[in-house]
Amino acid sequence: MTDFTYYSPTKILFGTSSLGQVGVEARRYGDKALVVYGQGAVVRTGVYRKVVDSLSEAGVEVVPFGGVRPNPRLSLVEEGAARCRSSQIPLVLAVGGGSAIDTAKAIAVAATLPDGVDFWEHCFLQWRQPSEGLAIGVVLTIPASGSETSDACVITNEATGEKRIASSPAMLPAFAILDPETTYTLPPYQTACGACDILAHLQERYFTAEQFNDLSDRLLEAAMGHVIQNAPRVLREPTEYRWRAELMWAGTLAHNALFDRGRNGGDWASHMIEHALSARYDIAHGAGLSIIIPAWMKHVFPSCVDRFVQYAVRVWHIDLPLDDPDTVVLAAIDQLEQFYRRLGLPVRLSEACLPVSETDLEQMAASVATDEFKVGGILPLGPADVLKILRLAL
Amino acid sequence: MTDFTYYSPTKILFGTSSLGQVGVEARRYGDKALVVYGQGAVVRTGVYRKVVDSLSEAGVEVVPFGGVRPNPRLSLVEEGAARCRSSQIPLVLAVGGGSAIDTAKAIAVAATLPDGVDFWEHCFLQWRQPSEGLAIGVVLTIPASGSETSDACVITNEATGEKRIASSPAMLPAFAILDPETTYTLPPYQTACGACDILAHLQERYFTAEQFNDLSDRLLEAAMGHVIQNAPRVLREPTEYRWRAELMWAGTLAHNALFDRGRNGGDWASHMIEHALSARYDIAHGAGLSIIIPAWMKHVFPSCVDRFVQYAVRVWHIDLPLDDPDTVVLAAIDQLEQFYRRLGLPVRLSEACLPVSETDLEQMAASVATDEFKVGGILPLGPADVLKILRLAL
Repeated sequence: MTDFTYYSPTKILFGTSSLGQVGVEARRYGDKALVVYGQGAVVRTGVYRKVVDSLSEAGVEVVPFGGVRPNPRLSLVEEGAARCRSSQIPLVLAVGGGSAIDTAKAIAVAATLPDGVDFWEHCFLQWRQPSEGLAIGVVLTIPASGSETSDACVITNEATGEKRIASSPAMLPAFAILDPETTYTLPPYQTACGACDILAHLQERYFTAEQFNDLSDRLLEAAMGHVIQNAPRVLREPTEYRWRAELMWAGTLAHNALFDRGRNGGDWASHMIEHALSARYDIAHGAGLSIIIPAWMKHVFPSCVDRFVQYAVRVWHIDLPLDDPDTVVLAAIDQLEQFYRRLGLPVRLSEACLPVSETDLEQMAASVATDEFKVGGILPLGPADVLKILRLAL
Repeated sequence: MTDFTYYSPTKILFGTSSLGQVGVEARRYGDKALVVYGQGAVVRTGVYRKVVDSLSEAGVEVVPFGGVRPNPRLSLVEEGAARCRSSQIPLVLAVGGGSAIDTAKAIAVAATLPDGVDFWEHCFLQWRQPSEGLAIGVVLTIPASGSETSDACVITNEATGEKRIASSPAMLPAFAILDPETTYTLPPYQTACGACDILAHLQERYFTAEQFNDLSDRLLEAAMGHVIQNAPRVLREPTEYRWRAELMWAGTLAHNALFDRGRNGGDWASHMIEHALSARYDIAHGAGLSIIIPAWMKHVFPSCVDRFVQYAVRVWHIDLPLDDPDTVVLAAIDQLEQFYRRLGLPVRLSEACLPVSETDLEQMAASVATDEFKVGGILPLGPADVLKILRLAL
């Protein structure tokens, strides 16, 4: 086990009684909130109305800030930050999924940077981690990103076409409201993409170069087994509270830092490759992952076969002779692809009908890694490796 | 899943580099700390010296407060609280295990109660939860109680012979330092008692009346399987970092509130019965649990056999015909007793050489439960049930 710090101060309110508490929680941070949301789904489902009512009742003035799109954009962040500065807003409240939350986190930090400091340059390129920001609150309506208790956000710079991650303790939400009933109306495809992202967060943490970190391994295996069993139930009965509640809680735990303590990070190469894919094609993150992860596994497993055998046996219960590890691992990857397909997700670029040329592949590979700056914790990958993975995904 | 709030703001610093950071962490809360410790073990091992050096280097004045005993006493808490008030000490820092931590928590809350409010009456009998207290820090040297991130403490009122629990958000430690190397010198019996307590915290959470809470079930099963495999390794190689580190982290996670979210508490009757036992006999908590838990299981399982079968199959991998559930469960209880024995722990009162009379049994049973106030989440127990369990433990 490597040394670590664990700090997760977000207050989580979970259940059918939680949504009505958003006003009281928000009021602890001031009497005004920038309410960040997306394309209006939360308005149509009535969640936005309930949030606004609760805020108003608690004496919190609402400053609406809609229009967040998937793969959220830097320009909107800068607009939100300017709004917070000019109106002296102390709290940024996201109502939605990962895109709304990441936008809110970025706004909260960008709004308090000193004049003259460029947010993108400072936080995304130089990887600086400001220690201060506005307070952040979350009303989660899409279980997927796990951003509700993480200290990171992913933002796309539409001017450069880059999709990058920034992190900072200042991006830890002060509170997160998780009411599973708000997810009943999520369309099947979006639900499936969310489940895929949740499983991916567990898998990324699982594939580590750390040699012995048994408790974290077992917790991740338990959570992966749970998602694999529960996600199809959610799609079958989308308004059954039990399945929706379990998926929502799994989504939070999967990306809370808890399950990878004691290992020097996981792998995350699949996420980096997917970011290049979705920065270029605006494909849903979960659908990008279901394409990239099996291809990544096929390329990587021969270099660290023991860990993949453990994954195959403990998560997929593959019962083949362990003296033929390649067959064991390939059977697990096949099971994973079948699982994705059962959720209605693509497992090849061709199935997603993306117009990918050889030039596109090469440009994406070059944007993900260089020979100096490789990606991936369990097996560092250069651009030639990434290109091979993308070709395996065709 | 039941509605819940989860709030665990304790900053955890884990590893060989963590001990030297205690001064910097403590300094955030002021320039003086009451350092609470036990019978001098931490002085003999050199941990206390390292803590004092780090505090001094950071400009934190040390007010030593030793003498905490197992089953920590109310009188010492009151003495510590008076000391904090008279010397205006802002931070209570425990160096040790559950007894030192619980004493520190109690001092931190007792020190800030208004004049005229009786701490025992207010927090332990009326179950009030003060929202304020002094800051609490922990340097953990005994993985067992999990008190380092919990919001509760267990204190014995030596005047009345009662051992009771109190809880409050004000008892959540601000930071906890976990350096596995500080546990290398723990004697085998104390190590075993700690492992038993850790497993018990997982078991208590597992045996719940909640019908469906799958992710929590699986996380608890994963952690139980881990402790069962890892604890004997610790006893075999007490200075092997890997085993000690895993046990220490398991101890924290087992009693953090995370793994029982979504269920309305676990069972905890075994803990309540053990508290009566160790209040009367000064037996180590872990050794009391290894006696009480198998007896509790034998009495309770016929009322909720499905859950015990799940425990037997998933945790102990019992492979017997599932149409004979009693045999399956009894095989698991037998495995659990064998596990305790392998750790060198007693599984019967007679093995602990306690002079227990029939009157003792009856008095203990009466102190644990009444017909109005039963104990236990999965099967509420009255005094007659508790007496039966104690007899099964003879």
